[in-house]
Amino acid sequence: MLGKMMHKQLTIGSLIEHAGRFHGATTVTSVETSGETVHVTWGDIDQNARKLAAALGRLGLEQGARCGTIAWNNRRHLEIYFAVSGAGYVCHTINPRLKPEQLIYIINHAEDQVLFIDTTFVPAVAQLRAHISGVRHIVVMGPRDQAIAEQIEGVLFYDELIAAEDGRFDWPELDENTASSLCYTSGTTGNPKGVEYTHRTSVLHSLGGNQPDGMGLRARDTVLAVVPMFHVNAWGTPYIAASVGAKLVLPGPHLDGVSLAKLIDAEKVTVALGVPTIWMGLLQGLAETGSTADSLQRTIVGGSALPTVMIPTFRDKYGVDLVHAWGMTETSPLGTLNQLLQKHDALDTEAQAKLREGQGRPPYGVDLRIVDDEGTVLPRDGQTQGNLQIQGHWIIDQYFRADGSALTDDGWFDTGDVATLDQDGYMIIRDRSKDIIKSGGEWISTVELEDIAMSHPKVAQAAAIAARHPKWDERPVIIAIKSDPDLNADELLSHYDGKVASWQVPDRVVFVDSLPLGGTGKVLKNKLRDTYGDILLEN
Amino acid sequence: MLGKMMHKQLTIGSLIEHAGRFHGATTVTSVETSGETVHVTWGDIDQNARKLAAALGRLGLEQGARCGTIAWNNRRHLEIYFAVSGAGYVCHTINPRLKPEQLIYIINHAEDQVLFIDTTFVPAVAQLRAHISGVRHIVVMGPRDQAIAEQIEGVLFYDELIAAEDGRFDWPELDENTASSLCYTSGTTGNPKGVEYTHRTSVLHSLGGNQPDGMGLRARDTVLAVVPMFHVNAWGTPYIAASVGAKLVLPGPHLDGVSLAKLIDAEKVTVALGVPTIWMGLLQGLAETGSTADSLQRTIVGGSALPTVMIPTFRDKYGVDLVHAWGMTETSPLGTLNQLLQKHDALDTEAQAKLREGQGRPPYGVDLRIVDDEGTVLPRDGQTQGNLQIQGHWIIDQYFRADGSALTDDGWFDTGDVATLDQDGYMIIRDRSKDIIKSGGEWISTVELEDIAMSHPKVAQAAAIAARHPKWDERPVIIAIKSDPDLNADELLSHYDGKVASWQVPDRVVFVDSLPLGGTGKVLKNKLRDTYGDILLEN
Ligand SMILES: Nc1ncnc2c1ncn2[C@@H]1O[C@H](COP(=O)(O)OP(=O)(O)OP(=O)(O)O)[C@@H](O)[C@H]1O
Ligand SMILES: Nc1ncnc2c1ncn2[C@@H]1O[C@H](COP(=O)(O)OP(=O)(O)OP(=O)(O)O)[C@@H](O)[C@H]1O
Ligand SMILES: [Mg+2]
Ligand SMILES: [Mg+2]
Repeated sequence: MLGKMMHKQLTIGSLIEHAGRFHGATTVTSVETSGETVHVTWGDIDQNARKLAAALGRLGLEQGARCGTIAWNNRRHLEIYFAVSGAGYVCHTINPRLKPEQLIYIINHAEDQVLFIDTTFVPAVAQLRAHISGVRHIVVMGPRDQAIAEQIEGVLFYDELIAAEDGRFDWPELDENTASSLCYTSGTTGNPKGVEYTHRTSVLHSLGGNQPDGMGLRARDTVLAVVPMFHVNAWGTPYIAASVGAKLVLPGPHLDGVSLAKLIDAEKVTVALGVPTIWMGLLQGLAETGSTADSLQRTIVGGSALPTVMIPTFRDKYGVDLVHAWGMTETSPLGTLNQLLQKHDALDTEAQAKLREGQGRPPYGVDLRIVDDEGTVLPRDGQTQGNLQIQGHWIIDQYFRADGSALTDDGWFDTGDVATLDQDGYMIIRDRSKDIIKSGGEWISTVELEDIAMSHPKVAQAAAIAARHPKWDERPVIIAIKSDPDLNADELLSHYDGKVASWQVPDRVVFVDSLPLGGTGKVLKNKLRDTYGDILLEN
Repeated sequence: MLGKMMHKQLTIGSLIEHAGRFHGATTVTSVETSGETVHVTWGDIDQNARKLAAALGRLGLEQGARCGTIAWNNRRHLEIYFAVSGAGYVCHTINPRLKPEQLIYIINHAEDQVLFIDTTFVPAVAQLRAHISGVRHIVVMGPRDQAIAEQIEGVLFYDELIAAEDGRFDWPELDENTASSLCYTSGTTGNPKGVEYTHRTSVLHSLGGNQPDGMGLRARDTVLAVVPMFHVNAWGTPYIAASVGAKLVLPGPHLDGVSLAKLIDAEKVTVALGVPTIWMGLLQGLAETGSTADSLQRTIVGGSALPTVMIPTFRDKYGVDLVHAWGMTETSPLGTLNQLLQKHDALDTEAQAKLREGQGRPPYGVDLRIVDDEGTVLPRDGQTQGNLQIQGHWIIDQYFRADGSALTDDGWFDTGDVATLDQDGYMIIRDRSKDIIKSGGEWISTVELEDIAMSHPKVAQAAAIAARHPKWDERPVIIAIKSDPDLNADELLSHYDGKVASWQVPDRVVFVDSLPLGGTGKVLKNKLRDTYGDILLEN
């Protein structure tokens, strides 16, 4: 028997409509590609998004057409998010750091019909234009610029496109299961794979992910989204900010610590979101500028392993609460967030901080389990490691243009991460299943070995990999970048004393000048294994 | 084009499953009907709800069958909420304060098949058993009690019913549009009408209503639900508390101020929810017990007009932040909540408090407009009064067993309230359209006249009504209960000087010993109009 309530579709159009109607006067700050900072409002974003939606219709796009973006976090990108999805097209955000051949592959695989690009990327796109002939329109995100018009044939200019419209476009009430946006995985473990979100999953992710124990954004917040809009919808921040009417700050292209520190002070940012490497830079930037980041209350940090030293640094030096989070492209991305329970009040600061190093627990809407290689469910005892699997309202079912399901036979998505889960649902990522070192039947976490190496004052960055070994199958090797030339392998290895069991201490240290990074800044350990995987067999 | 994400149904079963799995050890405090306070956990609630769900199946109930409850806020009621809805039946909460003939009408209208009752209501139900012959099973919420068994033939006992089950029941993944619960309106303006919620609307109401600027409950909170579980699902508090894993305190039958003050201190309540009359009692109870309610941070108050003096009293005496909210049975109920915006930081405490007297603004998921009697949309200028209309993800479409739609031709629900809306979406209820006084073409708010009367130290309670008038059509009359015998009409009327325009001052004061109250404690102004409506014509 069905109930008798209104059935409104959960759409991205309804998010921006709400922001425009009830938070029309609230500021959106945008650092433009030119470097200039502009202040607009949610009302402006709504208006321009309506204009762009109308313009895309006028270009003859069909429902479901993919529109790519290669852009920084800025106001036009925000308008594109709402215009493209809200009008029934698919917003395909593309990582600008990808190599040309990857860009070509992804644009063609997605069958993008329109490509919105920031001026930064005009030369790159001009180069590969011939290889992406399926793209019907390239739109440069700015006013008309003759020099650019000469570089790319038939290029359109964003500001002209919307100036031609009157903004009287009504957001359609689309079927909520309609595809809304598309993002490819980082490509850390292989080729990037496309994940196509729906309006429903995007709205549920906003509502479920922004509970008070989740992102917890509110109208009083000023939210700095350092996390790129080109990856997993900036963790849903644009949608959440629209739904609650928070002031949103989009930092544009300059994500170095000094630029961020200045922006935080200028805009009085209360909450900032980003990956750990960005925050390492910010800590440096704060030190350099002498800023004490007075307005900043919280940072939400995730996307790769958190250097554990970051929590006390933010807390003790700046009074900032660091919330550690875990997620994936395939999970929209919010899977877990680390907030304490009432019973943890009894713990001292040290014990609380220890707990918060982990990846946290799932909000309602996400379910987690760990299983062994045969698929048997393992206990939630905080000790047993297993393959982390996930289900929920905003989790992938099938990769974009893939034939089969991405799920196990019983309907779970295997994350490729190895984790423990405790009784309260606190999850700790031990490693990726492809990275973990299997030494004589025992597992060694590369994440843990790296965290120890990076806590050495003379190490700038480090990666641990499994190297093949004649007796133990695999043994750990550390690949490290020195921050002080006066460091040798023995000194680094002795740093492991007392921190791990002796059989977990790496067999070898290799010092390098740089580590291979993927498009979202993660170390490509498969490349390192290709290079150094046989190093222990070589003599 | 549909996206490729998992599609999990939004069900009430999934809420309790989440609580059981991830917050199984968190406390639920229940003041039993006996007066005893017991502490159980969300894990226990989940287990017993599964047992009850299985038992209901064993009783041969069909999907969609209504199960009534006449009960206080306690743990068994909580289990019934999840068991009945979670298993695919409809949980019909009934207001125990209704008169016997209203109870009979509602139980038969709902076609309840099972009736769960607290021991308090055994005598009343025994009396009307013959008139509700459609009810197949009456279940008394407690252990077997021979005296009770003799009063109602064939009665079942809750504790026996669940003791026979092993708890290995799996929550079915129901179609999310399935009816989940049923509640009748308060009957303040006429006969109570049934509103049938769905799983989807209940879950969306939880997610949308519990945003940080909404109810804002989190796992660290201890939540006292004084708002009755027999009316509009206690504002969704049980569902929200389950979804976030908050400690929930259910106060049982004794809602006097002293009992509540003691409970708040004993359980270290951080957030409490209820209607204004309850909080008037609590303020009295705090004064009497000498408690300073140290743990209490917030109260969420709504359901009828808020005596404005309550905000500074809570703030200045107890450091408690009062959040004013508005809603209706037809709106699940959360329609608006009053939290400030960032720009209001610039206001002083007095101006902020003034702003917070209003009913607040809608969360994402709710849309509001005001229209005139012809349906023309009126401006959101904070001045223009109009009929308040609402749309959204948790708003009624059609009353239970009604033929037609409850909506306007263009799909809005008319609330029956008269309100203003400002540009930021802040809404202020001026009156009910049936109550507002139309004096010579101008409108006078009864709510405002009552608030002034009640701010007089010698007035305990007051209601304003429209009395027919030969010249002005309608004129205001005040019906008041004195708290001090030494009060006369002139003194009360002079209290209006300078507070309203002189033509708004009531024409007459009538002192009474009591006011007629409906089932949820609201003054029945239609009854007062029946009695006093011609008082100005009589001489
Ligand atoms: N807080 C965190 N701590 C540790 N690892 C994290 C955290 N957050 C995310 N990760 C890692 O990032 C992964 C998700 O990243 P993303 O979806 O961007 O692509 P990727 O997995 O790096 O690339 P690909 O799937 O193409 O190999 C997770 O599976 C996990 O390994
Ligand atoms: N914060 C508030 N301030 C003023 N009035 C409120 C507030 N919250 C709720 N109300 C009033 O309560 C009404 C909703 O109450 P409810 O659904 O319990 O039944 P009712 O309207 O009193 O009864 P019926 O519809 O049967 O006449 C609203 O329409 C509004 O008039
Ligand atoms: Mg991956
Ligand atoms: Mg009503």
